[in-house]
Amino acid sequence: MPQRDPFRASEVESRRTRPAKPPLSRDAIVEEALHQLTAEDGGAMSLRKIAKALDTGPASLYAYVDDMSELRALVLDHALAAVRVDDAEGPWRDRLEALLRSYGKVLASSPSLAQMAFQTTAVGPNALRIAETLLEILAEAGVDRPTAAWAIDMLTMFVTAVAAEHAHGADPGAPDGAVAQAINRAPASEYPRVHAAREEIMSGTGEERFAWSLDVLVRGILSRAQS
Amino acid sequence: MPQRDPFRASEVESRRTRPAKPPLSRDAIVEEALHQLTAEDGGAMSLRKIAKALDTGPASLYAYVDDMSELRALVLDHALAAVRVDDAEGPWRDRLEALLRSYGKVLASSPSLAQMAFQTTAVGPNALRIAETLLEILAEAGVDRPTAAWAIDMLTMFVTAVAAEHAHGADPGAPDGAVAQAINRAPASEYPRVHAAREEIMSGTGEERFAWSLDVLVRGILSRAQS
Repeated sequence: MPQRDPFRASEVESRRTRPAKPPLSRDAIVEEALHQLTAEDGGAMSLRKIAKALDTGPASLYAYVDDMSELRALVLDHALAAVRVDDAEGPWRDRLEALLRSYGKVLASSPSLAQMAFQTTAVGPNALRIAETLLEILAEAGVDRPTAAWAIDMLTMFVTAVAAEHAHGADPGAPDGAVAQAINRAPASEYPRVHAAREEIMSGTGEERFAWSLDVLVRGILSRAQS
Repeated sequence: MPQRDPFRASEVESRRTRPAKPPLSRDAIVEEALHQLTAEDGGAMSLRKIAKALDTGPASLYAYVDDMSELRALVLDHALAAVRVDDAEGPWRDRLEALLRSYGKVLASSPSLAQMAFQTTAVGPNALRIAETLLEILAEAGVDRPTAAWAIDMLTMFVTAVAAEHAHGADPGAPDGAVAQAINRAPASEYPRVHAAREEIMSGTGEERFAWSLDVLVRGILSRAQS
């Protein structure tokens, strides 16, 4: 039996009549939750804080959202509205890269959002809009439907994972980060290949690695499509 | 200035003399932390719980580990000791898949471990042993060193992200999961390509998708190596 669709659930009419308080609504709750999540102080959302900001009690929120899991799905989709799906013109490859960069940029705009995106399945209308556009771009690239259907999952997981990885505070890939230290002190006798490749392992900016990884994915997808 | 290497830090001699208590050591702390993390009840490790299990106070632990971040790195590497790097014989492709499957299996053995692995940079001797073997396998595949140096990061991120994604409780990709529901109710008028591809989007087991995704990555890496 299909569960109700939280993205299309009918609005609950607020019982508030006093004009001083803004009317409660699902949109107001989601908006406030995203505001808290992306706040500069590190960002965490909680029903208690949301209720306080909207001048109500936590229990009142349950008339609008079922639980935190549903709220997270709504908040993620609300954030994904900022992803530009048709920003670039021209060849499919450019449009694919522009869309995925926009996706990554939106998620990376807040460490808490990036982290939540990785832990939350994107299933709302904005996630569908992104999936629809990715399928369109891959069709233009000549990728058959079964390959494209699985490829979009891999592409979005890649972008989300990169954003979430970078969300964990200090960059371990920095020149003096944990990775560089571990690689640099790996003794050549025990780890000859790591030692020999240490400069290459540490090379490149995050930007360069993103472009490189995306190119690897695209080449792999095109190769699967042709086989 | 290089920081001290927590994986090689000299042992602190325990002041305990009474035979009833086992001697405190970094190994005992890491062992207990991993035990807590992979416990069946969901698993979370805390200095307080570790201290209690080892019959000491939390403050005593700081003689052995600097902070939670260092403890996490030590625990992750301890867990990675279970990854079989030379389990398979034969062609490089089989060995690569066997290694990455073993890696994924170790991480997926506990949702908390999978989650922690995604949030913690693997930089200990076992992570280096995995990197060394991956470089060896890719060299056999004919992949040049610069390509291989970046490819190992992508391969391990892929395995870690898949394990961490599956760690979030209910499988959103299940036939009646959130994704299936969202895809199935996506109206053809708004999302024609998603609607047309809905069966392919939902098809395949986790196992099949893992193999498929790995194949995409390998094809992409080989294609980069040849260009």
